[in-house]
Amino acid sequence: MKQNIIIINGPNLNLLGIREPEIYGNQSFERYFEELSFKYNQVSLDYFQSNIEGELINKIQEVGLTGLKADGIIINAGGYTHTSVAIADAIKAIEVPVIEVHISNVDAREDFRRISMIGPYCSGNISGFGLKSYDLALEYFLNHSNA
Amino acid sequence: MKQNIIIINGPNLNLLGIREPEIYGNQSFERYFEELSFKYNQVSLDYFQSNIEGELINKIQEVGLTGLKADGIIINAGGYTHTSVAIADAIKAIEVPVIEVHISNVDAREDFRRISMIGPYCSGNISGFGLKSYDLALEYFLNHSNA
Amino acid sequence: MKQNIIIINGPNLNLLGIREPEIYGNQSFERYFEELSFKYNQVSLDYFQSNIEGELINKIQEVGLTGLKADGIIINAGGYTHTSVAIADAIKAIEVPVIEVHISNVDAREDFRRISMIGPYCSGNISGFGLKSYDLALEYFLNHSNA
Amino acid sequence: MKQNIIIINGPNLNLLGIREPEIYGNQSFERYFEELSFKYNQVSLDYFQSNIEGELINKIQEVGLTGLKADGIIINAGGYTHTSVAIADAIKAIEVPVIEVHISNVDAREDFRRISMIGPYCSGNISGFGLKSYDLALEYFLNHSNA
Amino acid sequence: MKQNIIIINGPNLNLLGIREPEIYGNQSFERYFEELSFKYNQVSLDYFQSNIEGELINKIQEVGLTGLKADGIIINAGGYTHTSVAIADAIKAIEVPVIEVHISNVDAREDFRRISMIGPYCSGNISGFGLKSYDLALEYFLNHSNA
Amino acid sequence: MKQNIIIINGPNLNLLGIREPEIYGNQSFERYFEELSFKYNQVSLDYFQSNIEGELINKIQEVGLTGLKADGIIINAGGYTHTSVAIADAIKAIEVPVIEVHISNVDAREDFRRISMIGPYCSGNISGFGLKSYDLALEYFLNHSNA
Amino acid sequence: MKQNIIIINGPNLNLLGIREPEIYGNQSFERYFEELSFKYNQVSLDYFQSNIEGELINKIQEVGLTGLKADGIIINAGGYTHTSVAIADAIKAIEVPVIEVHISNVDAREDFRRISMIGPYCSGNISGFGLKSYDLALEYFLNHSNA
Amino acid sequence: MKQNIIIINGPNLNLLGIREPEIYGNQSFERYFEELSFKYNQVSLDYFQSNIEGELINKIQEVGLTGLKADGIIINAGGYTHTSVAIADAIKAIEVPVIEVHISNVDAREDFRRISMIGPYCSGNISGFGLKSYDLALEYFLNHSNA
Amino acid sequence: MKQNIIIINGPNLNLLGIREPEIYGNQSFERYFEELSFKYNQVSLDYFQSNIEGELINKIQEVGLTGLKADGIIINAGGYTHTSVAIADAIKAIEVPVIEVHISNVDAREDFRRISMIGPYCSGNISGFGLKSYDLALEYFLNHSNA
Amino acid sequence: MKQNIIIINGPNLNLLGIREPEIYGNQSFERYFEELSFKYNQVSLDYFQSNIEGELINKIQEVGLTGLKADGIIINAGGYTHTSVAIADAIKAIEVPVIEVHISNVDAREDFRRISMIGPYCSGNISGFGLKSYDLALEYFLNHSNA
Amino acid sequence: MKQNIIIINGPNLNLLGIREPEIYGNQSFERYFEELSFKYNQVSLDYFQSNIEGELINKIQEVGLTGLKADGIIINAGGYTHTSVAIADAIKAIEVPVIEVHISNVDAREDFRRISMIGPYCSGNISGFGLKSYDLALEYFLNHSNA
Amino acid sequence: MKQNIIIINGPNLNLLGIREPEIYGNQSFERYFEELSFKYNQVSLDYFQSNIEGELINKIQEVGLTGLKADGIIINAGGYTHTSVAIADAIKAIEVPVIEVHISNVDAREDFRRISMIGPYCSGNISGFGLKSYDLALEYFLNHSNA
Repeated sequence: MKQNIIIINGPNLNLLGIREPEIYGNQSFERYFEELSFKYNQVSLDYFQSNIEGELINKIQEVGLTGLKADGIIINAGGYTHTSVAIADAIKAIEVPVIEVHISNVDAREDFRRISMIGPYCSGNISGFGLKSYDLALEYFLNHSNA
Repeated sequence: MKQNIIIINGPNLNLLGIREPEIYGNQSFERYFEELSFKYNQVSLDYFQSNIEGELINKIQEVGLTGLKADGIIINAGGYTHTSVAIADAIKAIEVPVIEVHISNVDAREDFRRISMIGPYCSGNISGFGLKSYDLALEYFLNHSNA
Repeated sequence: MKQNIIIINGPNLNLLGIREPEIYGNQSFERYFEELSFKYNQVSLDYFQSNIEGELINKIQEVGLTGLKADGIIINAGGYTHTSVAIADAIKAIEVPVIEVHISNVDAREDFRRISMIGPYCSGNISGFGLKSYDLALEYFLNHSNA
Repeated sequence: MKQNIIIINGPNLNLLGIREPEIYGNQSFERYFEELSFKYNQVSLDYFQSNIEGELINKIQEVGLTGLKADGIIINAGGYTHTSVAIADAIKAIEVPVIEVHISNVDAREDFRRISMIGPYCSGNISGFGLKSYDLALEYFLNHSNA
Repeated sequence: MKQNIIIINGPNLNLLGIREPEIYGNQSFERYFEELSFKYNQVSLDYFQSNIEGELINKIQEVGLTGLKADGIIINAGGYTHTSVAIADAIKAIEVPVIEVHISNVDAREDFRRISMIGPYCSGNISGFGLKSYDLALEYFLNHSNA
Repeated sequence: MKQNIIIINGPNLNLLGIREPEIYGNQSFERYFEELSFKYNQVSLDYFQSNIEGELINKIQEVGLTGLKADGIIINAGGYTHTSVAIADAIKAIEVPVIEVHISNVDAREDFRRISMIGPYCSGNISGFGLKSYDLALEYFLNHSNA
Repeated sequence: MKQNIIIINGPNLNLLGIREPEIYGNQSFERYFEELSFKYNQVSLDYFQSNIEGELINKIQEVGLTGLKADGIIINAGGYTHTSVAIADAIKAIEVPVIEVHISNVDAREDFRRISMIGPYCSGNISGFGLKSYDLALEYFLNHSNA
Repeated sequence: MKQNIIIINGPNLNLLGIREPEIYGNQSFERYFEELSFKYNQVSLDYFQSNIEGELINKIQEVGLTGLKADGIIINAGGYTHTSVAIADAIKAIEVPVIEVHISNVDAREDFRRISMIGPYCSGNISGFGLKSYDLALEYFLNHSNA
Repeated sequence: MKQNIIIINGPNLNLLGIREPEIYGNQSFERYFEELSFKYNQVSLDYFQSNIEGELINKIQEVGLTGLKADGIIINAGGYTHTSVAIADAIKAIEVPVIEVHISNVDAREDFRRISMIGPYCSGNISGFGLKSYDLALEYFLNHSNA
Repeated sequence: MKQNIIIINGPNLNLLGIREPEIYGNQSFERYFEELSFKYNQVSLDYFQSNIEGELINKIQEVGLTGLKADGIIINAGGYTHTSVAIADAIKAIEVPVIEVHISNVDAREDFRRISMIGPYCSGNISGFGLKSYDLALEYFLNHSNA
Repeated sequence: MKQNIIIINGPNLNLLGIREPEIYGNQSFERYFEELSFKYNQVSLDYFQSNIEGELINKIQEVGLTGLKADGIIINAGGYTHTSVAIADAIKAIEVPVIEVHISNVDAREDFRRISMIGPYCSGNISGFGLKSYDLALEYFLNHSNA
Repeated sequence: MKQNIIIINGPNLNLLGIREPEIYGNQSFERYFEELSFKYNQVSLDYFQSNIEGELINKIQEVGLTGLKADGIIINAGGYTHTSVAIADAIKAIEVPVIEVHISNVDAREDFRRISMIGPYCSGNISGFGLKSYDLALEYFLNHSNA
């Protein structure tokens, strides 16, 4: 049976391909998601984006609590990464493994981006590889974990 | 006439009884709310939960501004407790008295949980008694205040 | 052709005229918005308020990305001013100029209100003039900028 | 058999009813203790006050180590709350459950009052309800705990 | 009778139009002051600049204490903004309202420029609009205040 | 009627004249107290010393609450100056005016001696004049106050 | 031969009696200086005030270096107290003893007023006694020191 | 032509499989390196380990400066990650891309491990996947980059 | 003539053998003191314990000032180690050498236990060896010092 | 044509040779300036000293803006080095190169002297060589730069 | 069978007897080591010194991992004590018990010497007894531990 | 007899002329050393570079302890400047004077480069003059010191 993996993107990641291409590249995530789905077709891939912190929590709870919904979560919490105790609590509460990804190298930007509130509760962190950060996370679930 | 008291629960408290039972116990809040309603039937008890910070503000405003809606608020703001200037501002803006409760002893956990942003604007704080923290808050409104 | 300017108000600013009149005055923003629309009728004026951080981001994206929707944004992010990396990222991502306004003099209140997370990405900041802060921002767009 | 509960009050709480009535009310604790003893006569209630940090430790050890002496401790450590590693160590060392109470809302006063050194080792914390904070603590022992 | 408004500029603002045009533009303040005087001729406009902290205090005292001399002060304290308790004390001591202006967006520069020592004692703050910050301050005194 | 003034000395001040004469001089306080009593015989002078924080509080309460006992307190809280919230609370609680004195110039020693916890609640502070700091405090009560 | 004592007052102290009477009283320092000169006529008393940091340094150097000019300095550095390394260096450089005075209790105001940059280099500190702080400093030079 | 990738391991990583298996697993890196070499045989893989900070710098310089030696570096700087400005400078100085890896989730350990000094100068960071972190880094070089 | 050595134990050390045996072992100090007296019978050994900070100071002064009373002090100040300026001042004031001991390794516990206020004034520090820390201190006085 | 170099000395440097010879030596700067002028007669040397922060800014602007007046500035800003944003702004604003010098090794004194506010905007820094720091700065302009 | 104990000394300890005798005494460690070997001949004593952080780690690993090589380690990590995460990790990784020693009382020197990075992972700490600190550590292994 | 001066360069300075020419210029230090040796042939010049912290300490000890080896040391400790207590201790331990140099203006780069750990123990500091910083240090030894 196919693994179910969901990608959860936080605030402003719906602007990908539009805003600040020198940092984030010029491809929209929707288009990239199609490429990912095609490329990793041995996995059942789902996608959710919201700018609303609480909706991210809703989704994490929904897919993270019942093993039927997802076998793994890839999250890019955007700006909430550095401020949200509530998302961190949600990740800590579920049992489905979560991988934190970032498109840019967050260490190389403002100081306040160097601390991830959600980091301690994720299984692993991948950042700085552009959209390929998502590929690496997916490949971890596909090839290297037992999720 | 019966007092109207509303319990407002913040993010992840809908997971009660499911997540981390060693910290939060294994009873869902919905079931516990029924018990509370039955036990304290001399008060009209209402309940609201949301994972969305702004919806908590909406509810605080709705019940807190018009004396008709509530005589007291019991709030457990979950992870927003430690980060939300906006919820604190809402509590400060209303006149209905608010009691802050926590299930766990927040002082005994991570350092960032030791400061409550909303604390200064609440009438009182009760934490560490498990679900009984809600009972104590209710009993304060019932027996000890003029709310 | 008329400029399109939108005023975006954050959490608890819907309580204007109701809460804490000694800080915020006793006029509702809705009524004030009518006055503004009448007074500055050479501009097309729009208004949006939400207590939800992510809905503020949604609106900033919606009007900020397509030049057709707005020529300028006036934002009072309320309590999110001091905590929201996500709103700051949204403002940074769009090209429509944004002016930050505050009704009260934020420097004269609690220490945590002295730092604005969104400040660095706004074109300018106006605070402390009561509701007239909005007038000044509007007049900047009308008379002094090329927006 | 009746539960034995002891209230331990720290420095300056002997001034209750005399000093700063706008913060602490105008009733002496001794008189209030009589009311409590009468009201909660199903429990055997004891009271101790000292301005001396080490005498508070002596008392905590005395009643806390031998189950015969007390089934629960209600402590208001006054100014030592925020500075005393030694009292915290005493509470940590005993097995009798301890509830921390404060008359005023300590979060709403000076910054240095926001951190309780003893908080992490108490079972729960109740603050801001005036003298009723003691009632709530007592009621917890009476009705809600197994102490 | 015409309002008397004085603009007080602090250190290095006499270099305007000469130094760092990418931050401050390339027009001298003297020339700009002429434009302002012409444009806002319904007000009696005065101008003072000094690089000496104490001379700024002297001038603030001179015009600020006697209602006859000024009805409003517009101050750009330059580098002293972030270090001068003494200028802050002077502004606090007088009754004439003071508006703080900055040409650049001080939030978008070095961290030490994010705190204004004089901010808490001014009526309002306007920054980031280039020389137009002075226009907005003037317009506030002209149209929106009772000064 | 003679004013009653009490000098309250904290920890290690009983060692005066014995320990570290290069900092504190080589005269015992007891002998100095005799000189003071003789020199300022128009005032009724009392003296108390303890190394125990709580006994200092006991004494402050005893003489500070009943106007009959003292008209003024001169306190040198020694090492407790920099750590004692409890003594500060006692001083804040009483109405008899308190002057804080120090023999050495506390600003010129370790950093942790630069902050006095009790300072904000005293009427005034005198430090650095050796034992003459007590003379100046006494002379204030005698000649310059209405205590 | 008479001692020469000079009082050096820093920024805004020329406003005494005018500004903020609830903090500083309502008597001008000039008038008070006359009283002091009359009252302490066994000493030759001089007075200097400036709002300019460097002029205070000039004066400290002028009277502090040549024993002929002054036997003691009483300084109230106003707002420069908390920021001026340069005045501190001047006091450190001279041999004439300097007493630091403040009219208000600086410990009881804003946090940044609790640290005096010049404190470590003064012989002693007197604060909180209103204008009587100057009397006490004078009396120290007259009666208690060998200056 | 095959890509040349070198894995550089810092202090104590030679203990892998020996020390603290609950954190680092129980397989030696040498054995794992053989597996990696076999599995990713389309790349020419090299390995270097040292406990000496400067030897890590020597190696980074040697392989990083001459394109012939390496096309990519995978570094796990161990304990030097959090303290070494010198290694960070070396990485910044070379042009060969560097990926930072960690076996454990460094965010979930001591606070001082949350800041990586070398992070800002690496292309990307991968941590928390056990030894699989190296696989992911290798796969990035193999499949996703142009290195 | 025999050396006189006194062991001074601070708060909660009277609970040794009772509280938290996983940290402090399960032997009471009184019994251990007998063993020490027997084992090191070439020295005259004394013992004092108090939970009261000021009584510890009293004892330090009593035995530390007159060479007749003690030749060396071994102190375990318990929780006062990290907060007591007053005990530190007492140790600094006496001439008898003082060795600081701790049963547990204080570096391996909470952060606030890593700084000893009294450390700088002691001759040496020994911690982490269980009750054997006292042995080592005694052996230092016996065999290695000239005390 | 001769280069024009100006030495600008800040507060208290006019006391050189008088104050604290153990730190600053016992030669006045005026006399030293004569020696420098004689020794480096291939350069046209000028000298300015003031205790007034703003006059230092005036001089920096005067000689720094018009290439005709100076080819290089050697500045020892004394105590203003560590506090003056305004002098730093002046140095940043001009194009004439500025070398920061200090007589003493500022790193070896108080902590607050370790940060130079003006450092980032100077071409180079020389400190700790006594008066020879000025020689080295001069020699840089003479022999090593193109100024 | 004899216990094997190794003393590992870090940077600059090879200078003992040469550098700063007022802090470290005037005896070389090599000579002292001979004395120790002679005095404690019931133990097999070894010695290693290096100025290179990584060589200290090499040695710790070498003797610490194989029980045959050492039964106990006495380490004085010199300046690396306060900065080395890598040495701390090495100590944490091995099972042979490690005692940290210092010749001087590190608490009585610069602030940065008050925190030992390796302290939490050592069995115990002994400092301030001059070279006798090594004796005490040895005696612990000989007489008091089961190592 | 010729003075012996040694230049000691720390990590990554062997990359000079290769890495980041916009910061460090494009000339290798080896070539520059030849120029220096030729230009300053009245001095015997030596050179040492290592990326290994401990080897820098070895060299400092070797040349610094025996007057025969060196009369002066010029050190550029590179990245170790800001982290190495151990190098600082080595410099403090020797008697040969040491001058700290930096090629770039370290004040104008990252914040962590503003503090030099070795600065307090060097005779003087020269930074920001490119490779000419070495010339100035050499000239100091040649012409201005008695080394």
